[in-house]
Amino acid sequence: MVIVQKYGGTSVGTLERIKNVANRVVRSKEAGNDLIVVVSAMSGETNKLVEYASFFSDSPSKREMDMLLSSGERVTSSLLAIALNEMGYPSIALTGRQAGIYTDGVHTMARIEHIESDLIKHELEIGKIIIVAGFQGITEDGCVSTLGRGGSDLSAVAIAGALGADLCEIYTDVDGVYTTDPRIESNAKKIEKISYDEMLEFASLGAKVLQNRSVELAKKLNVNLVTRSSFNDNEGTLITKEENIMEKPIVSGIAVDKNQARITLRGVSDKPGIAAKIFTTLAENNINVDMIIQNVGEDGSTNLGFTVPENELESTKQIMLDLNASENLEFDSHVAKVSIVGVGMKSHSGVASCAFKTLADENINLEMISTSEIKISMIVKDKYSELAVRALHSAYELDK
Amino acid sequence: MVIVQKYGGTSVGTLERIKNVANRVVRSKEAGNDLIVVVSAMSGETNKLVEYASFFSDSPSKREMDMLLSSGERVTSSLLAIALNEMGYPSIALTGRQAGIYTDGVHTMARIEHIESDLIKHELEIGKIIIVAGFQGITEDGCVSTLGRGGSDLSAVAIAGALGADLCEIYTDVDGVYTTDPRIESNAKKIEKISYDEMLEFASLGAKVLQNRSVELAKKLNVNLVTRSSFNDNEGTLITKEENIMEKPIVSGIAVDKNQARITLRGVSDKPGIAAKIFTTLAENNINVDMIIQNVGEDGSTNLGFTVPENELESTKQIMLDLNASENLEFDSHVAKVSIVGVGMKSHSGVASCAFKTLADENINLEMISTSEIKISMIVKDKYSELAVRALHSAYELDK
Repeated sequence: MVIVQKYGGTSVGTLERIKNVANRVVRSKEAGNDLIVVVSAMSGETNKLVEYASFFSDSPSKREMDMLLSSGERVTSSLLAIALNEMGYPSIALTGRQAGIYTDGVHTMARIEHIESDLIKHELEIGKIIIVAGFQGITEDGCVSTLGRGGSDLSAVAIAGALGADLCEIYTDVDGVYTTDPRIESNAKKIEKISYDEMLEFASLGAKVLQNRSVELAKKLNVNLVTRSSFNDNEGTLITKEENIMEKPIVSGIAVDKNQARITLRGVSDKPGIAAKIFTTLAENNINVDMIIQNVGEDGSTNLGFTVPENELESTKQIMLDLNASENLEFDSHVAKVSIVGVGMKSHSGVASCAFKTLADENINLEMISTSEIKISMIVKDKYSELAVRALHSAYELDK
Repeated sequence: MVIVQKYGGTSVGTLERIKNVANRVVRSKEAGNDLIVVVSAMSGETNKLVEYASFFSDSPSKREMDMLLSSGERVTSSLLAIALNEMGYPSIALTGRQAGIYTDGVHTMARIEHIESDLIKHELEIGKIIIVAGFQGITEDGCVSTLGRGGSDLSAVAIAGALGADLCEIYTDVDGVYTTDPRIESNAKKIEKISYDEMLEFASLGAKVLQNRSVELAKKLNVNLVTRSSFNDNEGTLITKEENIMEKPIVSGIAVDKNQARITLRGVSDKPGIAAKIFTTLAENNINVDMIIQNVGEDGSTNLGFTVPENELESTKQIMLDLNASENLEFDSHVAKVSIVGVGMKSHSGVASCAFKTLADENINLEMISTSEIKISMIVKDKYSELAVRALHSAYELDK
C-alpha cells in the first residue's frame, strides 16, 4: 500500500520521540508499504518563533512570518530522514517546495492550489522513504507560504490525494475519535469508522482530533483518513466516505461544546431586514454566529436567539447595544451545546424525540434546538452538560 | 553606495542584538545607501542542530544536514526583516535560493558557482532593504546546500561581487585587524587598510577575524572588504587590493600561532624520493604540513624538519614510526610560529635581518625559518613567543 503518515508536534516533541517515530515508520516500511511521512515542528517550536517575531512587531510582515515559521518543520523532517538513513532505510527529506506543494499567495493562511508530485513519485519508485516538512508550501512566485493552523494535516491529505494513496494516517497523542469525551463519560468507546460528514460535525462541535479543513479536503479528494496515536499500537478511527461504512449506526457519538454563549433579543420589531442587519453587522465584525432561532413573539414582534463563541460575547454585546435592535436583551455565557451526530439519522425517525425525552427525564431544560440531516444540537445550562452527555450516551447505547 | 553588510552569530545572538542590528541597518540606509544584509544563525543555534543530528547518527546524511542547518539563518533573516518593516523600512527576507546563490552539489561544503541577482536588483530598485539568509545556497537540482564554516561571509562577498557593491562590511565582535594580538601586546594598533595577500597570510597564521576562503573570494571578485564590530561605531579595517593602499608599510603586523608542533628527522638517507614518500603519506592522512626545512647533514645523510598543527602531532608520530624513515626522530609540541607580514617587504631589504637581530638580542633561538614575498615565519620555543611578538612589534615601530 501507499501510505501517507503525518506526525504532529507532540509526536516529534523530543529527539527520543523522533526516534520512536522512525521505528514506527520502519515497521510500516517492513510491512511492505511505500511511505510518505509528513512532520510538524517539534512542539513548542512554532510558538517560540511566534514569540520571537512579537518581540519586534505586533503585526509582523506575513511573508517573513512564513519564512520564519516554516523553519521548524525543516528541522524535524531532516532529523527524521537522518535517523532513517542511519537505520539503513534510504530516506530523503523534502521541503514544501521540493514536495511540490503550490499554494495561493495568502501568507500565513495559504490554500493549497495543486501538488506537483513528480519528485515524490520518482523517489518512491527508487525505494526511498519520503519525509516532507509539513505546514508549508510555495507560491507561484517562489515565496515560502504556510497553511495556517492544522497545516501539516492539510499537507498530508493533499499529498495522499495527489498520489492516490491508500491511506493517510494522522498521528497525534489521542487514540482516535470517541463516541463522546472520555473525560465526561468513562464508557465512551472508540469509533472504528466514521463518515466525513459526521467527522465534520464532530470537529465543528469541539472534538479537537482533526481540523475541519483537513476533513473537508479528505472528503473532496476521497482520501481515507485514519487518526491514531503515535504512543501505542491501538487501531485508530477511519474517516471515509459513507458508502465504505457497512453498518451505519443511527447515532455515532455525542459532542459537547462549552465555549458557547447565548444572546436573546425579545420583542424585535418583526419587519423585514432587521435580522439581516444584525447578522451582517456581526459578520462584518468577524463574529462567528452558530445557532439562530427565531420565534414569533407577541404583538407582531419576534424573539430572536443565537449563539456565539463565549470569547466573542463581549464584542457581541457591544454591537447589540450599538444597533439598539431590542429593548430586551439577554446574555448568557453559562450554556453548553450538546449534539448528537449520526448518518443513520437520515433514515431513522425518532432520534430527536428520544433525545428530548432522555433530557426531560433528567429534568434538563432545552434552551435552543437546531437540527441538520445528521445532527441534533441542543443548548442547555452549562452545569447540566455532563449529565446530558452521559444520559444521551447511554440512551443511544453507545457504551455497548 | 551599494553596501553589503554581514552580521555574524554573536551580532544576532539575542533578540535585543537583532534589534541593535536593525538600528545599524537603518542608520546606513538613512545615510543614503542601498543595503543588502546577510545574517548568520543566532549563536549557538547551529551547534544545537548539529547536536540534534548527532543524536541519530555519527555521520548524518549530508543532504539532510544541509536542510537542517540552513534553518537557523532563515530564522534570523526573517526576524530582521520583520523588525525593519515594523520600523517603517520596507524589507524583504530572502533564502539562499531566493537570493540566487547557486552552488555545486558538495553538501555541507558547497562552493558558490554563480549568483542570479535579478531578484535582489529588482527589490533594491524599488527601495527595499534586502535581508539574505547566509551560509546557504541551492544546487542545480533544487536541493538546499550549505557553504561550510564561515559560509555567511562567503555569501556576503559573493553577493557583493555579483552586484558590484562598493563595500562589503563583515560585522563581528572585534574591531578589525590589529598589528598583533592585543592580548599579547597592549600597544597593538588597528590596521586601517591591508591588502588581500597580507590578510591571507594573517588568517592562515591564526588571526581568526576572517576565514581565508572569504578573503580569497573577495580578492578574486575585487570586493572591498571591511571587518568591524557590531557593538561599537569604530571604523574597521579595509581589506582591498594593493593598488588601493597608498602608503604601504614595510611591515603590517606580527602574527603568532601557538598551535604548532615540530618534527625533526636526523640522518635521513639522502636518496631521491625519501622526502616525497614522507609528505605524500602525511597528505594521504590529511595532515597539514606547514613549514618544511631540509638541511645537509653528515655522511651523505640529511636532516629534515617540518611543522604540523599540534593536534595532529600524535598521528604524525605514528606515521613517522611506521615509515621508519629515520632512527633519530624528535618531536616538539612546545613551539610557536611567529610571523612578520607586510607587502612592503617586496621592495625593502633588511626586513629579515632586523627580525633575526631583534630576536637574537632577546636571546631567542630560531628553530626554523621560512620566508615568502610578503612574510617571514620563525619557529621559536613556545615560552618565548610573547616576548618575540612584543620585541618585533616594537622593532618595526608598529606601536607608532
